[in-house]
Amino acid sequence: MSDHPLVLPFDPAGLVIDRRRGLSQQLYEALRSRVLDGRLSSGTRLPATRDLAAMLALSRNSVVRAYDQLYAEGYIESRVGDGTYVSRLEKISTQLSTGLSRGLSTGLSTFHSKVTEDLSSNMLSSEPLERLKSNHLPPPKTGAPRAFRVGIPAFDLFPFNVWAKLQAGFWRNPDRVQLGYGDPAGEHGLRELISAYLRRSRGLSCTAEQIVITSGAQQAISLCAQLLLQPGDGVAVENPGYRAAGHTFAVAGGKVVGIPVDGEGMESARLEQLKECRLAYVTPAHQYPTGVTMSLARRLALLAWAERRDGWIIEDDYDGEYRYSGAPLAPLAALDRQGRVLYVGTFGKIAFPALRLGYLVLPSRLVQSFSQGRALAMRHSEVGTQCVMAEFMAQGHFQRHIRRMRKAALSRRNVLKAGWPVGVSGLGPMPEVAAGLHVKVDVDNFAREQELVAQAETVGVEVNPLSSYWLEDSPVPVDKRAGLVLGFAAVPEGEIAEALMRLRKAWRKG
Amino acid sequence: MSDHPLVLPFDPAGLVIDRRRGLSQQLYEALRSRVLDGRLSSGTRLPATRDLAAMLALSRNSVVRAYDQLYAEGYIESRVGDGTYVSRLEKISTQLSTGLSRGLSTGLSTFHSKVTEDLSSNMLSSEPLERLKSNHLPPPKTGAPRAFRVGIPAFDLFPFNVWAKLQAGFWRNPDRVQLGYGDPAGEHGLRELISAYLRRSRGLSCTAEQIVITSGAQQAISLCAQLLLQPGDGVAVENPGYRAAGHTFAVAGGKVVGIPVDGEGMESARLEQLKECRLAYVTPAHQYPTGVTMSLARRLALLAWAERRDGWIIEDDYDGEYRYSGAPLAPLAALDRQGRVLYVGTFGKIAFPALRLGYLVLPSRLVQSFSQGRALAMRHSEVGTQCVMAEFMAQGHFQRHIRRMRKAALSRRNVLKAGWPVGVSGLGPMPEVAAGLHVKVDVDNFAREQELVAQAETVGVEVNPLSSYWLEDSPVPVDKRAGLVLGFAAVPEGEIAEALMRLRKAWRKG
Repeated sequence: MSDHPLVLPFDPAGLVIDRRRGLSQQLYEALRSRVLDGRLSSGTRLPATRDLAAMLALSRNSVVRAYDQLYAEGYIESRVGDGTYVSRLEKISTQLSTGLSRGLSTGLSTFHSKVTEDLSSNMLSSEPLERLKSNHLPPPKTGAPRAFRVGIPAFDLFPFNVWAKLQAGFWRNPDRVQLGYGDPAGEHGLRELISAYLRRSRGLSCTAEQIVITSGAQQAISLCAQLLLQPGDGVAVENPGYRAAGHTFAVAGGKVVGIPVDGEGMESARLEQLKECRLAYVTPAHQYPTGVTMSLARRLALLAWAERRDGWIIEDDYDGEYRYSGAPLAPLAALDRQGRVLYVGTFGKIAFPALRLGYLVLPSRLVQSFSQGRALAMRHSEVGTQCVMAEFMAQGHFQRHIRRMRKAALSRRNVLKAGWPVGVSGLGPMPEVAAGLHVKVDVDNFAREQELVAQAETVGVEVNPLSSYWLEDSPVPVDKRAGLVLGFAAVPEGEIAEALMRLRKAWRKG
Repeated sequence: MSDHPLVLPFDPAGLVIDRRRGLSQQLYEALRSRVLDGRLSSGTRLPATRDLAAMLALSRNSVVRAYDQLYAEGYIESRVGDGTYVSRLEKISTQLSTGLSRGLSTGLSTFHSKVTEDLSSNMLSSEPLERLKSNHLPPPKTGAPRAFRVGIPAFDLFPFNVWAKLQAGFWRNPDRVQLGYGDPAGEHGLRELISAYLRRSRGLSCTAEQIVITSGAQQAISLCAQLLLQPGDGVAVENPGYRAAGHTFAVAGGKVVGIPVDGEGMESARLEQLKECRLAYVTPAHQYPTGVTMSLARRLALLAWAERRDGWIIEDDYDGEYRYSGAPLAPLAALDRQGRVLYVGTFGKIAFPALRLGYLVLPSRLVQSFSQGRALAMRHSEVGTQCVMAEFMAQGHFQRHIRRMRKAALSRRNVLKAGWPVGVSGLGPMPEVAAGLHVKVDVDNFAREQELVAQAETVGVEVNPLSSYWLEDSPVPVDKRAGLVLGFAAVPEGEIAEALMRLRKAWRKG
């Protein structure tokens, strides 16, 4: 103690221990906070464990454990033949900033009020965080599915009993080889089965080696954004379109440019006018959200543009399995001879979104980079989900389930079509729906769109305003952006009919 | 045909159909490729379905399906009262680039050879792809775990039967609410249980709202890189250190700066000299790979630096549960009063890596941004894994398993220690191992390190050269970077003893 003449003796006052919680942990925390805020200053001699145990009516063991922990972490030290002292933290005080020093001398309350100030006046000073603020995804629609939520398939029909059995089977006796770090591109068995499925059912020739498994379509898009864009690069997206993709490009530093969509899909010719743009994101099979199928002419023009620009096309085939007349259209990627198309597929619209399982089919020269990019993003996907899906496909459940889902969506679409209100002011007719899980209906103007959406909400029916799918800075007048987007697969036929009844009432009143 | 006087009639020669595969799909593909490569030119009249069926000895149905598909995709068109023709694709030919036009006129073989050329002479012209090339993760060590693989816990002891039962239980009757899109921060129940675990067992006070679930520690680090860095920003990392983290920062555009590590951990004082650096990545509990625990003085200095710089500290507590004397050390985050520390935790070292489940504990003001960032990266984690882990924790299996794993690792460490070869030229003794799943042993120089690693490999034993954990441009001479890193938990005691026997032989010979 000779070199610390001003140190006060240890004072146990205020050390209140709550007997319902871990005793040594509480004592450790109480002593630590006193060391940190200066109430227990460097060089203070601590009582022997036996004495402190008696003072606080604790077992000696609890005190020993608390001291051990404080010692291990450097807060206290023992002097041979003497006793236990608070460590000499002053040796580092010169390195401490004013803020922390003030904290050390004036107590924890200062810290806490400072944190509160920081929270209110806070500048999160990094550019990516700034970009994120102006590009956040709308919070997902949660709660049980209801009519007419967009993006939700008929997952009430998923064979959960089969899935449960396959999960149990996989986990009861997993192959040890699969439990360490896996291939970032995904389990090879699953990639083989996906490539066979795409070849056989979707007319897309590809090898297992071209496939990289992702956590849903969103991760596929995000990887593309991170690996193909540098800050300031242009990205062409459909307008109206899938806003989450646009946000993903914007957060990666891309300059998002909306391209109009007409009855043939995105107007590819407009891409020519864009400078500094080598990436386009499209939904050719069933444009999101208008439902238009991109014409062959536009597809070829798009491919030609990508080739001339040394660019890339992301083809998001989010619901390509749902086609109600004829086979599903061959993807744009099947037309691509130059290795310019990155094809995005997902199991979320056949199984259910919370599965978070999707894939990219890549031009061969990109596979290695995307696989590496994914390794850095998260190493790889959880092994069980991949292996169970592989088994689900290998046993034929997947193909059976696609047929079941297509039939269900068609039947639900028919109920929507049959019960669609007619004669509602400003509301267009239900168009033919040849594909997908949602439909767009025209509305005369923006004010009426907002009214119809709000009236639907009052009777518990979810309809989405088409205007929310447009980029904010579109040149198109706001009244031309009006419409309704309705998902028709999320709930069974009975619930759809019932929702339509409520809608008719709500909308006729208005 | 009047406007296409030069069009040749349809010629079925070469249309060979393999009867073992889908007939209409093959016919569709054959006709499509002829349209695309110009063998079937615009305006060619196609035979009636009945006639083509007869020519090819197919059912008429197969031909109808193929025609339907070609029609739906725009390759052929029908003229009222006339017949079926190849579409007039010349209307878009002006938009086609030379490459694609050449393809259209000279056949598919040109395309294929062009793709091959592209592959060899290929420039992947985006900066992120370039950065990826020089910052790739080494391929994961695959195959069954063997002695002395680093980063693998004793997952042979994981209660897979319990996990299988919980998986089956979850999937047999899942809550429909959980199958749509979930909270990007993760399932709330799991976040509650993690925060309770951290408070009770790790001395880290935090709420469930501060926790964001990730796909393993790697995704946590990757999110930090994407959200906290902008291109050109400095990032301080330990040197030697966890190279995968460094690569992640570099690919996000960060300038990675190595800070030396001594017996007290990273030399925090050196951070003062770095300009333009507001982010540090550290492993304070058990430095990776040297095993040093960061001293209290260094911890406080690091926190003070972050506060002064308005910066952030990523604390990767990858194996903090493994402490063989006393309780685990309280994390750096428990000392943080200013909201500067982003704490990274993982289940991979308690359960098994292929689970890909980890979490971030964030300063409150960052939670919203990270949750949004994760939504853009992949929406959220697969629901089953999260809910099953929550149940595993709630039923007490997790805490029991931690104790089991700690005991197993300690026992395996003891076998390694007892059998460590002595008297091998240039090889240091086995140090005390107080924490973690691996240990670093000194070696005299680089040449000897390489020799020992190679000799071990000849007898099927995996030891990792310490030199590979250093940044390439370290100022430290290469001989000072030598050492061996051994994971001791991956395989049971018997296999460890046996591997040591082989090592002793291999190294004595050398």
